[in-house]
Amino acid sequence: MIKNLLLAQSGGPTSVINASLSGAITESIRMPNVGKVYGALHGIEGILKKNIIRLDNQFEDAYDFKRLESTPSSALGSCRFKMPTHEENPAIYEQITAVLKQLDIGYFLYIGGNDSMDTVNKLSKYFALVGEDIKAVGIPKTIDNDLAVTDHCPGYGTAAKYIATVMQEIIRDAKVYPVKSVTIVEIMGRNTGWLTAAGMLPRLFGTAAPDLIYLPEIPFDNERFIREVGDVFKSQNTVVVAVSEGVKNAAGEYVASAVQSGESDAFGHKYLAGVGKFLERLVLETIGCKVRSIELNVMQRSSAHLLSETDVIEARRVGSLAVRRAAEGETGIMLSFERISNKPYVVDIRSAKLDEVANLEKRFPVEWIAPSGHDLTQEALEYMLPLIAGEVATPMKYGIPVHFEFDKTLIRL
Amino acid sequence: MIKNLLLAQSGGPTSVINASLSGAITESIRMPNVGKVYGALHGIEGILKKNIIRLDNQFEDAYDFKRLESTPSSALGSCRFKMPTHEENPAIYEQITAVLKQLDIGYFLYIGGNDSMDTVNKLSKYFALVGEDIKAVGIPKTIDNDLAVTDHCPGYGTAAKYIATVMQEIIRDAKVYPVKSVTIVEIMGRNTGWLTAAGMLPRLFGTAAPDLIYLPEIPFDNERFIREVGDVFKSQNTVVVAVSEGVKNAAGEYVASAVQSGESDAFGHKYLAGVGKFLERLVLETIGCKVRSIELNVMQRSSAHLLSETDVIEARRVGSLAVRRAAEGETGIMLSFERISNKPYVVDIRSAKLDEVANLEKRFPVEWIAPSGHDLTQEALEYMLPLIAGEVATPMKYGIPVHFEFDKTLIRL
Repeated sequence: MIKNLLLAQSGGPTSVINASLSGAITESIRMPNVGKVYGALHGIEGILKKNIIRLDNQFEDAYDFKRLESTPSSALGSCRFKMPTHEENPAIYEQITAVLKQLDIGYFLYIGGNDSMDTVNKLSKYFALVGEDIKAVGIPKTIDNDLAVTDHCPGYGTAAKYIATVMQEIIRDAKVYPVKSVTIVEIMGRNTGWLTAAGMLPRLFGTAAPDLIYLPEIPFDNERFIREVGDVFKSQNTVVVAVSEGVKNAAGEYVASAVQSGESDAFGHKYLAGVGKFLERLVLETIGCKVRSIELNVMQRSSAHLLSETDVIEARRVGSLAVRRAAEGETGIMLSFERISNKPYVVDIRSAKLDEVANLEKRFPVEWIAPSGHDLTQEALEYMLPLIAGEVATPMKYGIPVHFEFDKTLIRL
Repeated sequence: MIKNLLLAQSGGPTSVINASLSGAITESIRMPNVGKVYGALHGIEGILKKNIIRLDNQFEDAYDFKRLESTPSSALGSCRFKMPTHEENPAIYEQITAVLKQLDIGYFLYIGGNDSMDTVNKLSKYFALVGEDIKAVGIPKTIDNDLAVTDHCPGYGTAAKYIATVMQEIIRDAKVYPVKSVTIVEIMGRNTGWLTAAGMLPRLFGTAAPDLIYLPEIPFDNERFIREVGDVFKSQNTVVVAVSEGVKNAAGEYVASAVQSGESDAFGHKYLAGVGKFLERLVLETIGCKVRSIELNVMQRSSAHLLSETDVIEARRVGSLAVRRAAEGETGIMLSFERISNKPYVVDIRSAKLDEVANLEKRFPVEWIAPSGHDLTQEALEYMLPLIAGEVATPMKYGIPVHFEFDKTLIRL
């Protein structure tokens, strides 16, 4: 029996979230029991508001898919929607089901991170409970790389490649003047250090890498930090520091917010300054040398001009496999990676039960942090290396990338 | 008569400053009357300190030159050295001349911006005054694009390409959630708006461009800014602003510093927050919606992973022509571009007298700013377009760029 398929994207965007969309659309066209392909705009909110568009008729040729795969940020829009339980709000479940039935949806695929996998899990259980034959499958994505069960998440490889590349460039820039200076690079990651760790990758090639690296997995201490910067100064003129936005002190408070709380009138609002600015001031007041802080900001999740080929291939592959497995009858699962071999890099893609994934958080292994607390082990670098491998020739026009844009004319419902 | 050649780099780095170095070294090897090629580390300071290395014997093949041309930040190191006049400090002139004579230098080439061209000018006059046969030629570079006489400067094209590319990515990211938000992108340029203007380039392709753009050439007014943001909100949910770090109010004060002066206890130090953070707070306090500021920071001058092919070719070309013209007897000049035609893009490279270049500043033409004050004309976009054209396949290894590193063993002097 032919049933239609609905795709949506949720949570923070990544540079390859649309490669998963591309893989899902192409596979849907191939599968005999999948009919039309729809997309909900801004995730679950798009279903609730009936903001649905048709996807599978918007591509002329392979170049269109290639452009979609090189377009950063969720092409269907995203949302931050915390799905209530069925007991808390049965109306939402009924409303979603009604829209899916109206569209004759048999397969619902949600591309997202932790919260989104929780949503897929709740919906798949609800569909089973009320006897609706709708398969619900999760496609992982997050630059944070913090999803449980899976070896890694699509989106992380490109973010890591961007961070490693830009870190190498920043270090060259930092060393250009013969003056004593500290450069602090603030990298995303509220709870886990996966992204910051990627800043250390240039060391594998014997080129410049940060001198000190601080992840949220190890409590941060201001005095120790200043002492460690001083230690680096004993042998060189320039210190480069990579720090997670989410480093916390021994009391578990964010390093920046702990200090700002005493100065809330000054900065006005907590999110006006992160740990980079805080450490910049700390260095200035204690060491007193030239100091600069750099926030890599949203470029970490939208650097589609510098894609990891591995990441794109894998993102596309979990998109297409999600369609295949849903069409084969699987539900309540998320596609997940198992690393079979590191050299050569070989992965297996499996179906993980959403009960084992949803609402968990995979932290950076503390055994991959060197005993000093400010360095990584070789094993950590070798874990990341295959994920950033390979280049993608981004479609360009007049010197800048050409992106893909869906026609967002809504389906009449 | 064969004479040796000395190269040095000065001022803020760019992504193609080493392409000029590469062009100069290869041309030196070709020229029959140029002998050995030396490099001074950290500009003039390297000459004064006798920190000199040999350059022409450090390359195995074309791939080494290719890597050098893809390495950001001055490979010889840089300095911020304000050359005194001969009257103020004759000893410095005598010291420099003594080192050059010891190395049998007949040609001194300095790759730099405004201050560096002033240094070359002073030295060339001094050499003539004391009857030393040393030709002094300036090779232009600056991401700021603010050198007089020349149509544009090597380094600007790649910075502009980076800004245009990243701006397009940031705008996609900013529009991903269905919530009212303002995104402020702070771009380099203390006095001129050339770099910020590049943020508007995506408009040429009909894709996302900033809604509002503010250059230092037009006085900035806080109330007008908030009103203009409000006007954009009338027709859309998301406002993206590109702003030069150097915007000033009607009194000529930097917008951020003017306000911070009243709050110096709060922020502690003026340079801890730029105009982006200032406007972020202003939006929060007046409009009260979600707001984020993004500083493109040193990535603007070190994005060698995203080179403009035009920029690399031109940077290499002025490097090689500088050698040729010095070897032919020219001195006291800087290589400069004259744009012969825009479509197709054709330039002529001429010798500009340093007296006409040094210490002048070329501002962004106010007639290229739209009457609204927050937009650009088509002419402005068409000026920038050829400068960002063409891609360079950066040498990569294991997923990140491979840079070139000189052996910095000093010559015994």
